[in-house]
Amino acid sequence: MRFSRRVTIRQVATRAGVSEAAVSYALNGRSGVSEMTRAKVLAAARELGWAPNLAARSLGLSRANAIGLVLVRPPRVLIVDSYLTQMLSGVEAELNRNGMSLLLHLVDEVDDTVDVYRRWFAGRHVDGVIVTDVRPQDPRIDALVELGLPAAVIGGHTGPDTISSVDADAAGTAARVADYLRALGHRSFARVAGVAELLHTRQRDAAFAAAVDRAGLDRHRVLHTNYSAVDGMRAMLDLMSGADPPTAVVFDNDVMAAAALKVVHDLGRSVPGDVSVIAWDDSDLCQITVPAITAVEQTPAHQAELTARALLRTLHTGDVSHITLPPGTLHVRESTRPLRPRHP
Amino acid sequence: MRFSRRVTIRQVATRAGVSEAAVSYALNGRSGVSEMTRAKVLAAARELGWAPNLAARSLGLSRANAIGLVLVRPPRVLIVDSYLTQMLSGVEAELNRNGMSLLLHLVDEVDDTVDVYRRWFAGRHVDGVIVTDVRPQDPRIDALVELGLPAAVIGGHTGPDTISSVDADAAGTAARVADYLRALGHRSFARVAGVAELLHTRQRDAAFAAAVDRAGLDRHRVLHTNYSAVDGMRAMLDLMSGADPPTAVVFDNDVMAAAALKVVHDLGRSVPGDVSVIAWDDSDLCQITVPAITAVEQTPAHQAELTARALLRTLHTGDVSHITLPPGTLHVRESTRPLRPRHP
Repeated sequence: MRFSRRVTIRQVATRAGVSEAAVSYALNGRSGVSEMTRAKVLAAARELGWAPNLAARSLGLSRANAIGLVLVRPPRVLIVDSYLTQMLSGVEAELNRNGMSLLLHLVDEVDDTVDVYRRWFAGRHVDGVIVTDVRPQDPRIDALVELGLPAAVIGGHTGPDTISSVDADAAGTAARVADYLRALGHRSFARVAGVAELLHTRQRDAAFAAAVDRAGLDRHRVLHTNYSAVDGMRAMLDLMSGADPPTAVVFDNDVMAAAALKVVHDLGRSVPGDVSVIAWDDSDLCQITVPAITAVEQTPAHQAELTARALLRTLHTGDVSHITLPPGTLHVRESTRPLRPRHP
Repeated sequence: MRFSRRVTIRQVATRAGVSEAAVSYALNGRSGVSEMTRAKVLAAARELGWAPNLAARSLGLSRANAIGLVLVRPPRVLIVDSYLTQMLSGVEAELNRNGMSLLLHLVDEVDDTVDVYRRWFAGRHVDGVIVTDVRPQDPRIDALVELGLPAAVIGGHTGPDTISSVDADAAGTAARVADYLRALGHRSFARVAGVAELLHTRQRDAAFAAAVDRAGLDRHRVLHTNYSAVDGMRAMLDLMSGADPPTAVVFDNDVMAAAALKVVHDLGRSVPGDVSVIAWDDSDLCQITVPAITAVEQTPAHQAELTARALLRTLHTGDVSHITLPPGTLHVRESTRPLRPRHP
């Protein structure tokens, strides 16, 4: 864990060559300073690694006693995916212990999120926000820094050290999956991945590319999807009807893996007889399918809970932390088996 | 739709024999009046059918621009059930159109909800609340009336006319399911129901009892559960290992029906060969199982959206509405078939 340096408004003012009041206005996102002044202040604040002094901010002002979460409607929400339920459950578990609520808002586009942050900040509706489904060069991260609104990210981020994060160990988990398939005799596998634009997916893409190299497997095919059952079925049909169908397929969620079982069944083939299937993440769903699905348990509820805890710590002490979880646990069930040579 | 009468603070004060200020304090849940005065005011307000004048309340005070939802952790949240996702999605769709957020809080016991309502009300964190998973004689309904906090209920409720509701047509839907099974030649069916304490479940219990009578089916067995996959499997195992296993089973959600397929498979029997399975509600899950599950589409997202809309109308105009949705649509898939006589 790293800790934020304490930089004062005065230091930022000196560096920017403006008054402390101007710094305060600029960093709090209020009108009353020119865009030029605001730009100078933000540049100085970034250079100094400024983080809002939250104790001072809440002094004399009623705390909202709420944390904000803005979800971008695609890709996560309208699908039958246990991720959202688990994530909310984890966040709420931590907030509940602290008597706090979650302020939830859905938007259609990631850029709309920034407007919500500004409104929440202006109305003091939240004490901080949790960010999920981060993109590379995510505009929300810059906006949060500019507002001085405390934040923590579920997953990794490419932003400044003033925002906490709790990240999965994509590299460690991908290595575990690749090694397992290698041990079963598979020489390659295909991957049905999540949304290409998410940092989360890019981390997994890179992690699997490295793991495949390390395990000495052949180059693998990756199909990106929107996480839905329909996309999962389409991808599996594509893979299985090709000239050289894979002997194993790794899916980026539980729903797509379960839906893929139906495609294989409808093609008159068998899981795991003709193709092995692995889901990452695990859920109850993986245990009620026939066959039950071998899956990586990633504990998104735990990750979300730790993220909320990191944010509350920032609120109370100003500390910022970056945590990487241990690799996911592989639960071997019925959907994977040693490779049977195609031409014995 | 029925409309609330407009009762003024002055009328309540006259009826209770106290000052208008005392009425305001009592109805707003603030300290500064004796318990005796508060009781008198609340009694007078109830007798007169008082509903808070929301326009007046928000005058001079910043609107929270948020609606509250307190979820009681059992039974809905920690299970892989698409209901929560769909419900949140429907509420958010309506709030989103109005630039409002959802303030979400989880509690362990239904009674804890009232404390959250009081805190939200005192801090003006929400403009109104949506209530779900209502119990008969629900303490939350009384508390909302006492606080004068605008509310709408997803599902039916047994409380006063000052709270809107959007209810499913349990009777119409149960009749549809019973008639369908009767047409397939089934003489009876078992039901794996939800949480016995919920009004929702009691409505379905009563609806099915009436539908069975009306369709001339034999008395049916009902097992109550907590909606989880594990409870669904346990119930199905119980039913199928008995002396007289049912020829058809109706489940109160998608997850339990899907989990039951695995139990039948593991017993070496077949759906629909040996037993037909119906899920109420429908979801993507019902379409990716083998066999795909015949299911009632109840549109909880739409119900939640209409509930949010009713609440926003109350906030803007004071109008209260009670809507009953049309019966659910039965999607016939692969998990049901005409009864094959056991002793041909």
